[in-house]
Amino acid sequence: MIERLCIIGVGLIGGSLARALREAAYVKEIVGSSRSAEHLQKAVDLGVIDRYDTDAYKAVQGAELVFVSVPLGAMAAVFEAIKDALADGAVVTDGGSAKASVVEGVKKALGTMPAWFVPGHPIAGTEQSGVEASFADLYKGRRIILTPTAETDAEAVKKVRAMWEATGASVNEMDVEHHDEVLAATSHLPHMLAFTLVESLARMSEQREIFEYAAGGFRDFTRIASSDPVMWRDICLANRNALLAMVGNFRDDLDDLTSAIRDQDAGRILRIFQDAKAARDAFAG
Amino acid sequence: MIERLCIIGVGLIGGSLARALREAAYVKEIVGSSRSAEHLQKAVDLGVIDRYDTDAYKAVQGAELVFVSVPLGAMAAVFEAIKDALADGAVVTDGGSAKASVVEGVKKALGTMPAWFVPGHPIAGTEQSGVEASFADLYKGRRIILTPTAETDAEAVKKVRAMWEATGASVNEMDVEHHDEVLAATSHLPHMLAFTLVESLARMSEQREIFEYAAGGFRDFTRIASSDPVMWRDICLANRNALLAMVGNFRDDLDDLTSAIRDQDAGRILRIFQDAKAARDAFAG
Repeated sequence: MIERLCIIGVGLIGGSLARALREAAYVKEIVGSSRSAEHLQKAVDLGVIDRYDTDAYKAVQGAELVFVSVPLGAMAAVFEAIKDALADGAVVTDGGSAKASVVEGVKKALGTMPAWFVPGHPIAGTEQSGVEASFADLYKGRRIILTPTAETDAEAVKKVRAMWEATGASVNEMDVEHHDEVLAATSHLPHMLAFTLVESLARMSEQREIFEYAAGGFRDFTRIASSDPVMWRDICLANRNALLAMVGNFRDDLDDLTSAIRDQDAGRILRIFQDAKAARDAFAG
Repeated sequence: MIERLCIIGVGLIGGSLARALREAAYVKEIVGSSRSAEHLQKAVDLGVIDRYDTDAYKAVQGAELVFVSVPLGAMAAVFEAIKDALADGAVVTDGGSAKASVVEGVKKALGTMPAWFVPGHPIAGTEQSGVEASFADLYKGRRIILTPTAETDAEAVKKVRAMWEATGASVNEMDVEHHDEVLAATSHLPHMLAFTLVESLARMSEQREIFEYAAGGFRDFTRIASSDPVMWRDICLANRNALLAMVGNFRDDLDDLTSAIRDQDAGRILRIFQDAKAARDAFAG
């Protein structure tokens, strides 16, 4: 049970955490913070948070646990703002989709990697954003990755793990670099491809007609291109190295398939498609 | 009302057409044909067709309308097999996902483009295949593209249009080349990307772990990689030119985004993502 939780950035991710912990009766009081009083008031009206302060320094005071859920580009500034206001024994965790950049940003802002910070990432979300899109079941059956560093306090990790488990999620730990590679592969690269494809088609002269003839598969394939552009810009920049490596791999593989099609190499094309189908069916099975 | 319809290739597409026309009471008798008596018997057992003949030459005899729904690589051979068995006034249409290759194949097999052939393509489907996956509502509210050539009889087009409208679909006409470009953009290229991505990740050493951390967006994005490999191999080969042009465009755009990320050009990345989101939200409304 958490006496007081402070959530900085009360959108889809932060709002859904609040709702899930309330539903599990795992939290007594939730204080929200962000730059927009209007958004925070909406979160109060929706019953997601109890009260708010747009000043993060004030919002975190007396909180047992702090969840930072702001775009990656705004992370370091938040840590800088709250570092001197945290209660003794307070634990801070985050929801950033790339971990090396957050850890580096925090180290730089604070001059050291604090023992009370547990870098984390809930592998959940929809293409929606905002507190209106939040719901209590978002984390049910999903994975949370925690990436503690050598400096992270083991008790702090336990506390964060218990919080996420209360939402119905399962928690895994891995190191920062590995997290960033795995997420570049399964999330950041697919988003790049979907954004690129839709933007590419939108620039074609017959765009309206083209989209009219798009079938259900295209709709599913491009759903993630409706995701928040600012958030994804930040992710691409924050996880630049892992993402560029993954794009390089993908591009080589796309070139392979392209040349197989150019050469009319039916056997090679079929092998690629069969391997892909087998892998997709195995993991989605 | 169709007195006798012959469907050559009774899978998801052919089977769903049969079910839809039966439900609309638009057909009296449906004769199936394919190479597999076992599959055809299953289609009879499911009530999708009334009877079958594995010999297409025999199956089409006396049919008023023939729907050819076989992989693109098998199209020309079917036309060759049935051409001398068609009843006077019989109309033939197909469901091939690329039209130039079908038209060329038929011309080559028959020595001429017959007036009784109406090239067509229902823009509908799922990643499933086989008659077990067929359902009567597949075409409801979907688009059918007919690509008649200069040689095609206008009455034959009317007949095929009426058949598709009876399934609840809306019918558009466009020329063969334009169809192939539009489909390369909205269907064939996305399938290439999805197959490539999944195959690329499956070859990474941590593949099992990687797929474990894939969230819902990845699942949607890669659903089309579960599609039938043989069918998609044939589509890639059949629509090679339009597809290669489209892959070239996409690759240039992916390179643009990649260099924006490498250069940490936040403004350029954001513009691309915003344009994509605006286009996606507009068409998916």
